[in-house]
Amino acid sequence: MGSREADKAIAAADNYNKLLKSRGMRDDIRGMSNVEAAKSADVVIVAVRYQFAIETLQSVAGELDGKVVVTPIVPMSKQKLCAYTPPSEGSAARHICSVLPPNVRVVVAFQTLPAPRLADLDDPMGFDVIVCSDDEEAKKVVMGLVSDLGDVRPLDGGGVEEAKLVESLTPLLINLAIKNKTKPLSIKFV
Amino acid sequence: MGSREADKAIAAADNYNKLLKSRGMRDDIRGMSNVEAAKSADVVIVAVRYQFAIETLQSVAGELDGKVVVTPIVPMSKQKLCAYTPPSEGSAARHICSVLPPNVRVVVAFQTLPAPRLADLDDPMGFDVIVCSDDEEAKKVVMGLVSDLGDVRPLDGGGVEEAKLVESLTPLLINLAIKNKTKPLSIKFV
Repeated sequence: MGSREADKAIAAADNYNKLLKSRGMRDDIRGMSNVEAAKSADVVIVAVRYQFAIETLQSVAGELDGKVVVTPIVPMSKQKLCAYTPPSEGSAARHICSVLPPNVRVVVAFQTLPAPRLADLDDPMGFDVIVCSDDEEAKKVVMGLVSDLGDVRPLDGGGVEEAKLVESLTPLLINLAIKNKTKPLSIKFV
Repeated sequence: MGSREADKAIAAADNYNKLLKSRGMRDDIRGMSNVEAAKSADVVIVAVRYQFAIETLQSVAGELDGKVVVTPIVPMSKQKLCAYTPPSEGSAARHICSVLPPNVRVVVAFQTLPAPRLADLDDPMGFDVIVCSDDEEAKKVVMGLVSDLGDVRPLDGGGVEEAKLVESLTPLLINLAIKNKTKPLSIKFV
């Protein structure tokens, strides 16, 4: 886990490890700076808000050569309900691709996993996760990681061009939970 | 059922009635011209392609005063995969609202019901259908019609402003079925 301030990542990792240990699970999450995290990772998941995404990626771009970079990022605004507000590039994923070296293997995934559901280790899940990339091998790597989550099915959503169809699911899920007074919702294709 | 040519609607209605009768179900679907259909309906479902939607609605606009008009319409283009291609109004629904008298009660629904699944009377369904409208009473009418379909859950998706989040689900569903070689897919929120 990386953070702009390594101390914060270390403290968060400690908390996660305590939770994992209490359940008899492997407790080897390590906290560090963003640069160290990018350097030591094979797959980098950029789990930051859209407004900080470009700055964060640029601060670690030197460590991303040839690596898989996963964007779960969604540009959105909220008034009474949420709206999808993509940049002029067409999607956050396209914007991210435009600021990274061409050999970075960008993959779009995890837009429809609500954080509180993922954080609840007792949630039965049963979700689908759509994965998009122009790099078929990188897409397969991330589809494998999705399967590792448990009862979660990875689905191929196409290339980076299709990212906007996936990114716009997040405001939809938030709106449905608000209007229908449900728990945070995820998605399943039937 | 309406058609630009009443004969076509009559023939289609005959076919549906035969199917219904063979299953011991009520066989009283009637075919007629679009104008007659709009005139005799309380709720009008505009099940035509986006490219014909405005022209079709304008041809029956005189019959829609105060009525509920449901749009399942999605503007999209297809090359290798499908893309959502909304007009400058922001969505097909907004475009439709802009050409109808203000007292027509526009409701967005049924974008995620694949026609072949709906046509298969043995399909177990288990879908969700998102319904959006700025007219809460009209929204409730259509959510009731959704429930009448069987094992289908209506969900409130907000107003016409939110229509684009729903319309963009259709190209996503088509792409997922193509890329993952599945049957035509619908959606469920879990």
